[in-house]
Amino acid sequence: MKAVRLHEFHQLPVIDEIPEPTAQGPFDVVVKVGGAGVCRTDLHIMEGQWDAAMGTPLPYVLGHENAGWVHEIGSGVTNVAVGDTVILHPTPTCGLCHACRAGNDMHCTNSEFPGLSRDGGMAEYLLTSARACVKLDPKTKPEDVAALADAGITAYHAVRKAIPLLYPGTTCVVIGAGGLGHIGIQCLAALTATRIIVVDRNPDALKLAEQLGANHTVVSDGKHVDGVMDLTGGEGADVVLDFVAEQGAENDGFTMTRRAGSYYVIGYGGTVNIPTLDIISTERNIVGNIVGTYNDLAELMVLAQAGKVTLHTKTYPLDDAVQALTDLDEGNVRGRAILVP
Amino acid sequence: MKAVRLHEFHQLPVIDEIPEPTAQGPFDVVVKVGGAGVCRTDLHIMEGQWDAAMGTPLPYVLGHENAGWVHEIGSGVTNVAVGDTVILHPTPTCGLCHACRAGNDMHCTNSEFPGLSRDGGMAEYLLTSARACVKLDPKTKPEDVAALADAGITAYHAVRKAIPLLYPGTTCVVIGAGGLGHIGIQCLAALTATRIIVVDRNPDALKLAEQLGANHTVVSDGKHVDGVMDLTGGEGADVVLDFVAEQGAENDGFTMTRRAGSYYVIGYGGTVNIPTLDIISTERNIVGNIVGTYNDLAELMVLAQAGKVTLHTKTYPLDDAVQALTDLDEGNVRGRAILVP
Amino acid sequence: MKAVRLHEFHQLPVIDEIPEPTAQGPFDVVVKVGGAGVCRTDLHIMEGQWDAAMGTPLPYVLGHENAGWVHEIGSGVTNVAVGDTVILHPTPTCGLCHACRAGNDMHCTNSEFPGLSRDGGMAEYLLTSARACVKLDPKTKPEDVAALADAGITAYHAVRKAIPLLYPGTTCVVIGAGGLGHIGIQCLAALTATRIIVVDRNPDALKLAEQLGANHTVVSDGKHVDGVMDLTGGEGADVVLDFVAEQGAENDGFTMTRRAGSYYVIGYGGTVNIPTLDIISTERNIVGNIVGTYNDLAELMVLAQAGKVTLHTKTYPLDDAVQALTDLDEGNVRGRAILVP
Amino acid sequence: MKAVRLHEFHQLPVIDEIPEPTAQGPFDVVVKVGGAGVCRTDLHIMEGQWDAAMGTPLPYVLGHENAGWVHEIGSGVTNVAVGDTVILHPTPTCGLCHACRAGNDMHCTNSEFPGLSRDGGMAEYLLTSARACVKLDPKTKPEDVAALADAGITAYHAVRKAIPLLYPGTTCVVIGAGGLGHIGIQCLAALTATRIIVVDRNPDALKLAEQLGANHTVVSDGKHVDGVMDLTGGEGADVVLDFVAEQGAENDGFTMTRRAGSYYVIGYGGTVNIPTLDIISTERNIVGNIVGTYNDLAELMVLAQAGKVTLHTKTYPLDDAVQALTDLDEGNVRGRAILVP
Repeated sequence: MKAVRLHEFHQLPVIDEIPEPTAQGPFDVVVKVGGAGVCRTDLHIMEGQWDAAMGTPLPYVLGHENAGWVHEIGSGVTNVAVGDTVILHPTPTCGLCHACRAGNDMHCTNSEFPGLSRDGGMAEYLLTSARACVKLDPKTKPEDVAALADAGITAYHAVRKAIPLLYPGTTCVVIGAGGLGHIGIQCLAALTATRIIVVDRNPDALKLAEQLGANHTVVSDGKHVDGVMDLTGGEGADVVLDFVAEQGAENDGFTMTRRAGSYYVIGYGGTVNIPTLDIISTERNIVGNIVGTYNDLAELMVLAQAGKVTLHTKTYPLDDAVQALTDLDEGNVRGRAILVP
Repeated sequence: MKAVRLHEFHQLPVIDEIPEPTAQGPFDVVVKVGGAGVCRTDLHIMEGQWDAAMGTPLPYVLGHENAGWVHEIGSGVTNVAVGDTVILHPTPTCGLCHACRAGNDMHCTNSEFPGLSRDGGMAEYLLTSARACVKLDPKTKPEDVAALADAGITAYHAVRKAIPLLYPGTTCVVIGAGGLGHIGIQCLAALTATRIIVVDRNPDALKLAEQLGANHTVVSDGKHVDGVMDLTGGEGADVVLDFVAEQGAENDGFTMTRRAGSYYVIGYGGTVNIPTLDIISTERNIVGNIVGTYNDLAELMVLAQAGKVTLHTKTYPLDDAVQALTDLDEGNVRGRAILVP
Repeated sequence: MKAVRLHEFHQLPVIDEIPEPTAQGPFDVVVKVGGAGVCRTDLHIMEGQWDAAMGTPLPYVLGHENAGWVHEIGSGVTNVAVGDTVILHPTPTCGLCHACRAGNDMHCTNSEFPGLSRDGGMAEYLLTSARACVKLDPKTKPEDVAALADAGITAYHAVRKAIPLLYPGTTCVVIGAGGLGHIGIQCLAALTATRIIVVDRNPDALKLAEQLGANHTVVSDGKHVDGVMDLTGGEGADVVLDFVAEQGAENDGFTMTRRAGSYYVIGYGGTVNIPTLDIISTERNIVGNIVGTYNDLAELMVLAQAGKVTLHTKTYPLDDAVQALTDLDEGNVRGRAILVP
Repeated sequence: MKAVRLHEFHQLPVIDEIPEPTAQGPFDVVVKVGGAGVCRTDLHIMEGQWDAAMGTPLPYVLGHENAGWVHEIGSGVTNVAVGDTVILHPTPTCGLCHACRAGNDMHCTNSEFPGLSRDGGMAEYLLTSARACVKLDPKTKPEDVAALADAGITAYHAVRKAIPLLYPGTTCVVIGAGGLGHIGIQCLAALTATRIIVVDRNPDALKLAEQLGANHTVVSDGKHVDGVMDLTGGEGADVVLDFVAEQGAENDGFTMTRRAGSYYVIGYGGTVNIPTLDIISTERNIVGNIVGTYNDLAELMVLAQAGKVTLHTKTYPLDDAVQALTDLDEGNVRGRAILVP
């Protein structure tokens, strides 16, 4: 089959011909890929940023945001059948460790991460497990929803954690209205009545944000912290969801957070640098976020199928993977790029 | 009356003779001070660290940790009477803002902070308000409990917030077994069944920690991060309560925190410096903590009166305030120093 | 002034001429009433149902759902001034007891309940306290919002408590789409993405429910339990909000609640009669609800002023109070009846 | 193998010789039983009370509270090996439904309940699944811990749910200090600093309760509601844990619950009969409880292995199962009866 493989860091991946995966364990599931999202994390992987944490196994197939149709199942699989339309939780998990038993799939101590720690979904077929499959209405086109498998679940997970903080009368700042942020805005609008302020450097992204539910937008032009302060009576926002967290956003984000508020880190790449006196004198929190639970993904699919979250995507044939990665790197993708094998 | 007043930053306070405060508003309460705690924050105030946040009103009376007897009440006071023994929540609050209405006294938008923003309790009498008074059993000696008014409430507040994370099978690291930490350890032992690891540079403090409920102790000698990692199977602790948060503790503390865990900042003076990749890839949290609610203090008094929290204190006459501050600065106080007017 | 007074149980109230109240304590506030809601509870009071719990002080002025303008303030009042437009939390509270200090105004151990335990707002003027006043945009007409002071806060409080249970994919049944229920439906739609099923005996009420956000409606015709079961795959709803809780609704409501679900009692008059085996074998909860907190009311006003909750009301002059009560009793009021003095 | 089988309702079970179970599915585990608890639920099953809910499959083997050693495993089992000492969560679960994915094993939509819905553990061997096994220190004697598998997990689950309500200054009533209650008292003492009042008809049970951590005891003699009211200043307890919930306890329990408090139903057999006015006017809750999660059991084993929960048991050979059931029925077992095959 065709697959988009990374051979060395700091180089572009190439389209290779490799053998199809097969189901070997009782819970293995092979999925025919219908849509594989292209994510800023793929660029970070190519730069070697995830090597220390994940041991990127070069050469290997990229792609951690996938949906498709079940192609083959192991002997013990009961929850899906060949032909089912599925979206995949990014991590096949054990179901037996403390984290799995508490519903925290993303902290499974025995999980793998296709597209990071082993072959991913930018290919014709992908090996995953029964526990990763969320069954969809058969009418769903995988390319239309694939971006929910990682961008979507990550944005949803952060918003869902913040719901108890976002009662009427509060303000939530969203930094970054791109692939993740444009989903986060919709989740906020669907699940809370908070006032939403969106910060982005791109005026088109802000225009989209307004259509998706933003109450105010602020261009990220160096005066955006003041802009948010003006909109919040000088106090800052109850919650800041930072989908960027690099190039200064990470310290601006904390500054925009009000007394007793919470700054959610979702993007990455920068470094927070904060005096402990500033943390304690105002009792602010810095909250990490990674992917989400299986139930998060299932809940997000309910929102999507009810039309409360819609994706802005741009599709490319699998063969144009390099073009898609380049477009993303150069800021030429509104919403999310999706490879269709 | 006699009062311990700070006249200039970077100088020692002096004992001045000043007029006694009187109750003027309907909710004012004047308390005859029975015990006033000496806190590391007093040293930080003297260095000017709180001036930017609080506008330290020089010259003024130090002392933000107080207990005593009600001496005079305003016309609208119904909850205490002259002669009652009381411990004082550090901040007289309005009772009308959103934070007060949610029980979060320490975030009152109209509060004052005697000992920081106006005259405090290192004096014979202190002006406070009805809402700050917690009535005590008349047999209680104020000097025996005063340290609970700030050191105690702060440690209790942080522990109480962490309880849901500290179910059986978890581990909690306490960094610093001094004035706050030795109370925190007792609160952990009274309110959870977590495994407690205490880190401190002082072997005597660690000995005390063991008596108070620590399951393990680790000398802070440069290898203490490894020590905690060894005790937690290389994973780190579910919760780290950092009562130091300066001189490197603030970054060690985050490092000792396990995947999906929370690092609680309680002390201050240092600067956290953490890549956002480290925050998100493990979904860790950094949690600010400041003082506590009125109900926190009331609950802590229940623990204290049941003998579940006992204080290690050293009393000084009010005239020896400078000696007490110097002893604290030089590390010569085990537990808490208390001035008795 | 004119006032609607109840002289004896099982009789209609009459319009009396009585002295105007005046501010005497430092925190007293006298409000010129602009709108006073008429509630099913007034009918229950007239029947004597609240006498045991509240000691109804006959003769006295009815009316526990009020908005208006500040007319006079006590010497210690700082949060409102004469002329301010206000909506009133139903219970003036002490601000000093444990419940007040935790934000639970409705459990204040020193509260009064104008309209139940002393003179209420079906009059030209009402005596309340500073802590009960929520300040409004001066353009607000009190008669337009008065129904939020009791019907609104009660519905909002129950919905807000249920939010964590109502994630996407869940179902919420609302029993009763009248004065409280029609607000509850709007709160559900504004604050959650749950699927909403509304049960009522009145087809007009169900029509209104659909306009306000109901996804499905079921006529309460004896087969409504089956109707809900059919809509939930035979499992019942995650949450049932019962705004009726009499005449059988209270046992139907529990029956419609799924395994691990929660049945919220908001209306009253009936008696739940449930084998403990049914409670434990499915781990269901029965959740009591009464009025709400001050912050609940403030948050609800945010929703109302954003147009997310709109009231369906019918106004009557104060002199027609008896007509309004009769209309309510006979089922001739859609939404809420409001007296305008 | 020998097994204790029930052939007809309202008759005693008999010791039959039946074939040993074998592992057939990839996740099956066969356990050699080391201890099987005898529970009041077994008496209720014999009376036919669970037939409607569970479809008791007569004739079948009783026993839903089991510990032992792994005897055989299916091809896909990775978490235990033959010879491991294990305690068994009562329900083998699917790991794939929403409840399992949220950690709520006891609400698995595909679970079985050995000892209720199919052959249980009062036998030499028991068929269960990988997901039900909690691995223990090999030195543990199964007969010493078996009672934690059902009595223990059920008491722990209820206490753990109540922890947030049981801060210092609160009161918790425990009704019934028998098999479940004596564990509940220890869990309360280990995990909270609440004041514990225990109500039981048996003076010996109350003596044991005091040794295990009760602060007060009240003999259930018809005046026990007054006794609890006297101990709580006439207000009732914040939480009532009712391990009896029959013969009047179920209505006494609600009566003993204070305003805004919660009545936890854990035992069963009676019928709650409560006016909805009483539920709403005080905003009280009635909370169902059934067994617990896998993580509950794992956490309880941590408490047990730390010596914070100790069991009071009486062992019988498997052949004396009828005697054990009779002793339980006649009130002649202190703590829990355990069959040892």
